[in-house]
Amino acid sequence: MRKLTPEGCQARRQRLIEAVDVDLFVIVNPRHIFYFTGLFVTPLLLSAWGLSALLIERKSGRTILLMHEMVGGQAHDAYVDEVELYRWYNGGEGTLATPDLFGAGVAAIGGRIKAAGARIIGYESGWLPLGLPVDNGVDVNSTLINLRRSKQADELDLIREAVRVNEAGHRAARAAIQPGASELDVFNAFHSAANLALGEAVHLMGDFVSGARALQGGGLPTDRRMSAGEVMIVDAFPIVNGYRPDFTATTAVTPDVTDNQRRLDRALHDALAAGEALLKPGTPARDVYAAVRARLDDHGFAEHFPHHAGHGLGLGHPESPFFVPSSDQVLQLGDVVTLEPGAYGDDFGARIEHNYLIAEDGYERLSNHETALIP
Amino acid sequence: MRKLTPEGCQARRQRLIEAVDVDLFVIVNPRHIFYFTGLFVTPLLLSAWGLSALLIERKSGRTILLMHEMVGGQAHDAYVDEVELYRWYNGGEGTLATPDLFGAGVAAIGGRIKAAGARIIGYESGWLPLGLPVDNGVDVNSTLINLRRSKQADELDLIREAVRVNEAGHRAARAAIQPGASELDVFNAFHSAANLALGEAVHLMGDFVSGARALQGGGLPTDRRMSAGEVMIVDAFPIVNGYRPDFTATTAVTPDVTDNQRRLDRALHDALAAGEALLKPGTPARDVYAAVRARLDDHGFAEHFPHHAGHGLGLGHPESPFFVPSSDQVLQLGDVVTLEPGAYGDDFGARIEHNYLIAEDGYERLSNHETALIP
Repeated sequence: MRKLTPEGCQARRQRLIEAVDVDLFVIVNPRHIFYFTGLFVTPLLLSAWGLSALLIERKSGRTILLMHEMVGGQAHDAYVDEVELYRWYNGGEGTLATPDLFGAGVAAIGGRIKAAGARIIGYESGWLPLGLPVDNGVDVNSTLINLRRSKQADELDLIREAVRVNEAGHRAARAAIQPGASELDVFNAFHSAANLALGEAVHLMGDFVSGARALQGGGLPTDRRMSAGEVMIVDAFPIVNGYRPDFTATTAVTPDVTDNQRRLDRALHDALAAGEALLKPGTPARDVYAAVRARLDDHGFAEHFPHHAGHGLGLGHPESPFFVPSSDQVLQLGDVVTLEPGAYGDDFGARIEHNYLIAEDGYERLSNHETALIP
Repeated sequence: MRKLTPEGCQARRQRLIEAVDVDLFVIVNPRHIFYFTGLFVTPLLLSAWGLSALLIERKSGRTILLMHEMVGGQAHDAYVDEVELYRWYNGGEGTLATPDLFGAGVAAIGGRIKAAGARIIGYESGWLPLGLPVDNGVDVNSTLINLRRSKQADELDLIREAVRVNEAGHRAARAAIQPGASELDVFNAFHSAANLALGEAVHLMGDFVSGARALQGGGLPTDRRMSAGEVMIVDAFPIVNGYRPDFTATTAVTPDVTDNQRRLDRALHDALAAGEALLKPGTPARDVYAAVRARLDDHGFAEHFPHHAGHGLGLGHPESPFFVPSSDQVLQLGDVVTLEPGAYGDDFGARIEHNYLIAEDGYERLSNHETALIP
């Protein structure tokens, strides 16, 4: 697994420090702890479940990571000045301080906030728990949302590898889409290939739908077996290296699909190209939506296009910028975005999707999986 | 996927209401929202990422679930009286109210708390976010930890199915453990089989270690390929139906393992039996630890046994009761627990583990996977 760099984490913390004038930042969202320290924390990993906090003293830049004692080894991988492991349960030492992991976390974090003697605290609304000594708080959610849009070099390294892993999954899925195969067979083929491509297990989520559900666009895989003449939509967004690539292909089980399905395939590729043509710094996000929709309209599919034309991605998604009519956002250098035209009707249903980096002179397409309908 | 029942959720809410005297409960931990409403929420599922809250009015028993608008369909699967979807982003309607999902959640939940006019609020320490109108709060974490120990009938149905799924994974893993196979090959075989056994994709986490790492006990799978004479430890704890079974086997790659490794296999099975003999309501948790350790001591492996002898499980784990020397907890009817003796040294390393329900007359072993070292 590639990792964020200490320099990258330091630079991101510096951008936060320059953006918000508080004495102490208390970061609790695991995605942001990863963003600022390089320590990837997923709630699925038992030892990482629990309350963690990254304290950043604004004046000194000094960083303290508080995690519970079962994460000892991992916590020390974080790029921080100090790690404090609070007591809870330690199956190794055979000690049980309290069965209440979360109460223990509030007490430990509260103690360090108090000790820091900060007047004004920057916190993430919705994340910092009640019960902490924060008299004077400034919500930094909007600042973080904006900072995250501008991807740094170490982030792009991780995203590029994540995209390659997702491409490996798509190749395996495409080969597995056959009459008689189930949606879960395709999911398993995708997941196994992605794991092998990375050399470790990724968390995979996505739409894996065939038959009637493909005509509606999405859903988790089931044991439904597919038949000749149908299509399967695979829209995969695994967590790889802490980042989430997100791209889609629709593949015919056999070439004998409906005429509308074939027409739609051309329309989607045209619409994707229309969106791509606008991908550069300064373009209003709503214009990207309008361009994709207009091209689908040219082909007669606009009224069957029920969702966004794409969105930003990175540590999660959907995130800013959002390609919808009501967005006031504008594309900027360093945005990583997806375009995903799709349309769904009585005898057709398909979506294709690629990921892009917004560059000075336009864009770089990051994903290179096959999106042609007929295999 | 089996589901919790409306009656079971209602009974669990009633137990909470009877245990704590407050006007309003505000439940935010996704595991507890599932526990009380049947709605499974994993942060991996995009649409479930975000801030949700279950409000339970104590006097009337009335329930209100607040979730963000991208979860519309799912939220309505919850067993509650009212669902309120708060505005954030809706890629379907093409509307972007705010890019700040979490700030929107705090505002929405705060508004409903205020409208409820409750004097005293029961909340989960570490979960309810700062910034809500809670002047007079009572932490219900300890109550929930205790309630969760006593598994209800609908929970046991889900746990039994989850155990069967985990057994299917173990069978496939055992067949995949061969010279030349990688740890990831075994993980992929386990995961695919578990998915097919359930008919949907499970989230799999676990220890999948061979060679030198098996002599240390744990870790995520890598692309390391195993050789004759080695062993592989598979300790799997997927999320299935919202519950986490947790059991282990150690399998020899070929029968030519070291003498110590063979001796350890007998010691672990003896130690497991010694722990099982104490599994009944009223046994102090520390006595279970002591019995397992004493039997390992008889075989000369006690000094190589570095971890707990087991723990409770259910919505997560490790959770109460904890089988460690310092635990003051006592086994009770309805506990679901695991026993997991293990020992690790220079030329040996193994762990075996089974799951048990504590019953009136002792215990019922839930898991039936193969734990013999030599395949």
